[in-house]
Amino acid sequence: MNFADQLDSAIQSKGNPICVGLDPRFEQLPQKIRTKAIKDHGCTAKAVAEALFEFNKSILDAVSDLVPCCKPQVAFYEEYGWDGMRVYEQTIRYARRRGLVVISDAKRGDIGNTAQAYARAHLAHMRAPKEMPEDEFLRVLSATGSNITGFDADALTVNPYMGADTLEPFLKVCAETNRGIFVLVKTSNKGSGDLQDLKLDGGGTVVERVAKMVHELGAAHKGQCGLSSVGAVVGATYPEQAKRLRELMPDTIFLIPGYGAQGGTAQDAAAGFRSDGRGAIVNNSRGIIFAFKQEPFAKSHGERDFAGAARAAVLKMAEELNAVIKRR
Amino acid sequence: MNFADQLDSAIQSKGNPICVGLDPRFEQLPQKIRTKAIKDHGCTAKAVAEALFEFNKSILDAVSDLVPCCKPQVAFYEEYGWDGMRVYEQTIRYARRRGLVVISDAKRGDIGNTAQAYARAHLAHMRAPKEMPEDEFLRVLSATGSNITGFDADALTVNPYMGADTLEPFLKVCAETNRGIFVLVKTSNKGSGDLQDLKLDGGGTVVERVAKMVHELGAAHKGQCGLSSVGAVVGATYPEQAKRLRELMPDTIFLIPGYGAQGGTAQDAAAGFRSDGRGAIVNNSRGIIFAFKQEPFAKSHGERDFAGAARAAVLKMAEELNAVIKRR
Repeated sequence: MNFADQLDSAIQSKGNPICVGLDPRFEQLPQKIRTKAIKDHGCTAKAVAEALFEFNKSILDAVSDLVPCCKPQVAFYEEYGWDGMRVYEQTIRYARRRGLVVISDAKRGDIGNTAQAYARAHLAHMRAPKEMPEDEFLRVLSATGSNITGFDADALTVNPYMGADTLEPFLKVCAETNRGIFVLVKTSNKGSGDLQDLKLDGGGTVVERVAKMVHELGAAHKGQCGLSSVGAVVGATYPEQAKRLRELMPDTIFLIPGYGAQGGTAQDAAAGFRSDGRGAIVNNSRGIIFAFKQEPFAKSHGERDFAGAARAAVLKMAEELNAVIKRR
Repeated sequence: MNFADQLDSAIQSKGNPICVGLDPRFEQLPQKIRTKAIKDHGCTAKAVAEALFEFNKSILDAVSDLVPCCKPQVAFYEEYGWDGMRVYEQTIRYARRRGLVVISDAKRGDIGNTAQAYARAHLAHMRAPKEMPEDEFLRVLSATGSNITGFDADALTVNPYMGADTLEPFLKVCAETNRGIFVLVKTSNKGSGDLQDLKLDGGGTVVERVAKMVHELGAAHKGQCGLSSVGAVVGATYPEQAKRLRELMPDTIFLIPGYGAQGGTAQDAAAGFRSDGRGAIVNNSRGIIFAFKQEPFAKSHGERDFAGAARAAVLKMAEELNAVIKRR
């Protein structure tokens, strides 16, 4: 199934457009998870990585019947070297097994066959039999969309700064493996305007030009739902711009970061949705996975029931979003 | 020592500004390396990864007395999952042990503490003793610039699309660990103009605005040589723009890709240097590491002496560059 169809139907069946951001930080994890990991593995990268994975599993167990998708932030795994990358892979596998759509937030981007390598790294998967003739192995390795290890996410965030030709290798792999990309358009941070909001000679802004590029690239990748597998990242923190960007990209799925901890409200996030209440997912990382540190969940659940706190935070967020976004 | 000083003095002592791009592709490796890896590890990601590392070691053994620096392209390691990331780490360690300055070409970029995680992933390194009290371990993990595994390169390429505030966490880690960054300004690919060359209302282009940002961010990170540890990627394929960018960034070290396989000549690359012949390094990947497949080196060395071919290609490139760039 086309990625856009897969995500749209997951949103429909779960009844909310929430993406759970898996951005674990060892220092913030419940004490018992940290202590056990150190007991098992010493003060090592492996201990950190195993703790991140244990935490992710508990969060996923608690929320995967409620939400359509999750988004691991790759930096927080990469930070712990290849041990971290190992549990990034395990996290994706665990989430997909629980039926979630997985978006890898890696913000990759490069030229030609380098972009292809990134696409294959994150969006492809193929295990070769260990024994085969060398020329057969070479054929397998060269096939687009195959990778003998691939992190195997359903979609990947990518950076457009290097131009449309650097997005095409991603699209080629996506088309062959039914995966998707989300192109950074308007990011949620304060300084996002430095380049993105520059006004262009002849009218419009950089962001609008990127939006046009995404709209055009997406036309050939639409699903039966009418949405495209070429999505856009559009921060909840700039709702006025989100409305304008929605006009420029009517069939694009928006991945909306910036909800909660970064200040975006349900009303702000709603600005990125289509008028039929479709075409967007709203990410929340800290507000869900670390809900146990925040009221009212610190009191109602606390660290001992951090997973229950995450579940309660998802239910509250779904209620908030569904009050302002009506899917038709 | 400040990163700019370290790189500038390495260029001076080696007598050329060549950066060897470590972009190995399993399919392109000498047959004997591939066959041995498959024999030892089967048709697995580990076999591919070990083959990449064996190849890199031979290349580094052959060229590290000649050149100041090397640049692993992270995508080609990431493509093989955490096995690939393991040999990316080993490659960096091997190259640094041989005295090379190592630039990780990862083109990362993200906001706030995510950017910090990427900086710590690639530019920091700290091994904790395996046994220590948990609170001490937490303190160690939280220290800026420390990472219990860190890939530990000397510099990292980063993407500016998200704005200046997303570069600052990298600069903070760099300042504390004496490392550097190279910000993508003008990339070498055909489509680089899609965003980078857009003309701005009020004059100038996106690229020029990024150049101004790099120049300003770099002011606080200058070494004794007068150059900054905040560098810029400026493709050899656009020499006219490189001249203009050099005016805008007089104290910035340019990392110049696009030489050789992508069509840039020594004369083109020279456009990015300062008039004193300093302030830039020229990358060549395929033209060096796969020289054994190209004439005249295919005939003079061939696959059996692929490392000798790489060495000969470096010597030829140094001669070509030094004919047009005079360091004063």
